Amino acid sequence: MTAAQGVLSGLRLVEAAAFVAAPLGGMTLAQMGADVIRIDPLEGGLDYRRWPVTEDNTSLFWCGLNKSKRSVALNLATEEGRELAMAIACAPGDDAGMFLTNFPARGWLDHEKLKARRPDLIQLTLQGDRHGGSAVDYTVNPRLGVPLFTGDPASDEPVNHVLPAWDLITGQMVAVGLLAAERHRRRTGEGQHIKLSLQDVGLAVMGHLGFIAEAQLGNPRERHGNELFGAFGRDFVCRDGVRVMVVGLTGKQWRSIAQATQLEVPLQQLGERLGLDLSEEGNRFRARAGIAQLVGEWMARLDFKDVATAFDRHGVCWTRYQSIAQLVNDDPECSPANPLFAKVDQPGVGEVLAPGIPLRFDARMRVPPAAAPKLGEHTEQVLAQLAGIDAAQFGRLHDRGIVR
Amino acid sequence: MTAAQGVLSGLRLVEAAAFVAAPLGGMTLAQMGADVIRIDPLEGGLDYRRWPVTEDNTSLFWCGLNKSKRSVALNLATEEGRELAMAIACAPGDDAGMFLTNFPARGWLDHEKLKARRPDLIQLTLQGDRHGGSAVDYTVNPRLGVPLFTGDPASDEPVNHVLPAWDLITGQMVAVGLLAAERHRRRTGEGQHIKLSLQDVGLAVMGHLGFIAEAQLGNPRERHGNELFGAFGRDFVCRDGVRVMVVGLTGKQWRSIAQATQLEVPLQQLGERLGLDLSEEGNRFRARAGIAQLVGEWMARLDFKDVATAFDRHGVCWTRYQSIAQLVNDDPECSPANPLFAKVDQPGVGEVLAPGIPLRFDARMRVPPAAAPKLGEHTEQVLAQLAGIDAAQFGRLHDRGIVR
Repeated sequence: MTAAQGVLSGLRLVEAAAFVAAPLGGMTLAQMGADVIRIDPLEGGLDYRRWPVTEDNTSLFWCGLNKSKRSVALNLATEEGRELAMAIACAPGDDAGMFLTNFPARGWLDHEKLKARRPDLIQLTLQGDRHGGSAVDYTVNPRLGVPLFTGDPASDEPVNHVLPAWDLITGQMVAVGLLAAERHRRRTGEGQHIKLSLQDVGLAVMGHLGFIAEAQLGNPRERHGNELFGAFGRDFVCRDGVRVMVVGLTGKQWRSIAQATQLEVPLQQLGERLGLDLSEEGNRFRARAGIAQLVGEWMARLDFKDVATAFDRHGVCWTRYQSIAQLVNDDPECSPANPLFAKVDQPGVGEVLAPGIPLRFDARMRVPPAAAPKLGEHTEQVLAQLAGIDAAQFGRLHDRGIVR
Repeated sequence: MTAAQGVLSGLRLVEAAAFVAAPLGGMTLAQMGADVIRIDPLEGGLDYRRWPVTEDNTSLFWCGLNKSKRSVALNLATEEGRELAMAIACAPGDDAGMFLTNFPARGWLDHEKLKARRPDLIQLTLQGDRHGGSAVDYTVNPRLGVPLFTGDPASDEPVNHVLPAWDLITGQMVAVGLLAAERHRRRTGEGQHIKLSLQDVGLAVMGHLGFIAEAQLGNPRERHGNELFGAFGRDFVCRDGVRVMVVGLTGKQWRSIAQATQLEVPLQQLGERLGLDLSEEGNRFRARAGIAQLVGEWMARLDFKDVATAFDRHGVCWTRYQSIAQLVNDDPECSPANPLFAKVDQPGVGEVLAPGIPLRFDARMRVPPAAAPKLGEHTEQVLAQLAGIDAAQFGRLHDRGIVR
């Protein structure tokens, strides 16, 4: 633990959770210096072997989402194991008493039971849907309609996203909810049981972005392939086959494209021909086919390096499409040259490039990225600290299969 | 403002921002009861006409991302307008002095200038990339490699996502950063200037999910279409053409699929033929073609309603693919039957279904969804409250074009 200087130094969260959203919420606090203690069954939880895995079946996924945490492994099938888990979750301290789970709130995870031990406990229970039903990112996304407006407009096949966006947004919202409730507790002394469902996060976002309102008004979003909706932006291929994404969302971005491509006059004429003032973003969307033809012809005459030079000279908002292999092997932003990253020695994996928290607090409060723990690495330490279990007692618990 | 009871009641944030991430960060605090004051130029900011728009050009996007805020409109091209903006951002109060922007930190947005007025100011500046360069969701995504592993594996065309996932994650992280810094300030009295770049958020997530590590180990993620990576899950079409997504990620989910489809024996035989124990999630991915054939044949023999009945009886994790129109018109979860939503009267739009915050705090602390303000709706009120401008002074500022 290098948590001493973090902006959340002193805060403690106990986590019994799996997969993306809840562990990411916990890790977000851990990477700001909070003491986050993960409780798992002796053999590891539901996500302990989640792919991607190494050749010897160590989960890169699990390691990625549990960095900077402490790990306690308990036999949760026994009353004694569950007692120890509750003791850890409800240990005293003004900065402790926060508990995060995405399992059904029953057994030792039941809020009433935990609250009986610590009345000011803050518990956040993450659910699939708000009724407690099963829902994961893979099912929330088709229900929200997103796969049906993703991809080639000539096709009507749904395209699932590969980035678990709903999980990732929810993970951050877990951290938001815990910090907001902790602020409230510091002011009033009150704990509470916060509930959050993945499906509600998705529904809220669909509302916030206007997707729900436009459908209500009779214009549900259609497929636009790789084109940006409501302004100008899309992908183009240079003469040498390199593909780039170009964005003309703001007026400044739009003018920079016209300058870099030296298409001011033809674009002006296009607007006049169509009766559209292209300085208005919506008109750029209406005129997108004509704009794309002009920009595409310019691009097809030039090699990538010349396109890049022209775009950078004029401050165009653009990027090259690259593969993950190119990102990892060739892009200096994805290397220790970017202070977001550090090389850490990950048990079971070896040296990996690990990101910390992207929030850049004052330098004194930056916590460098740390590895994920080994399963049960801190069981003895945490039980001694928070449950008063001495070495002899721990040895007996270990021999009886209660701890690891 | 119905903020009195919210979990963040009393907290104040001033925001000068546009597009998705920063306004979403501010709205997240507003929907928990914080007083969030948005400062815009007299004619509205860069995103004031962002699509989708109504027929009379009111932005559903802007309204969606600025709910529950107060709006102040100032002539920021004048020294006097900028002075008023700084006075609002730096107004006194233990629970005030928080400022959020995604514009370059110069002019009145310069942290040093603001800090000279209020030494304990917390400022969060959102950037495109960490060097201050231009980057938006549309460019971050291709750079991270995601479009090249999205969509049909038979194609090598990139597929851009249509949900601005990086913006949405970043928006929540903005709220996380502000709350973490506010906690630190309450303990130490220290403010700070936090920086956060959209591109770094993307890079961090690519690391957290294991994408970077697997590429480092020589196995960059490939395209798998609509199939879930590392376990079993994909889309199928029922006899009557309805498409469903089915997920067998955990052991329990997997067993429920076998039971609902009555395919226990054929699946057992498939595993034996392939020499794979399908109770291990990774083996379900290895055997996905054979599993899909069996499940697909079962599905093709049944109409949707019979599939749904069988799945629900066995607790399968599944969903129907639906369009946004179906979501909005037919799904009770996307209606006031779900307490996430309320119908609100949105100025310039009419009655819309507006989502609040998905975090369900104790009932006493729930803030109902409220509309976005009219541009400048609270200018006079806020200037009176925070800058000591009385009605006569306001009238003169208005006549001189400094305020709206």
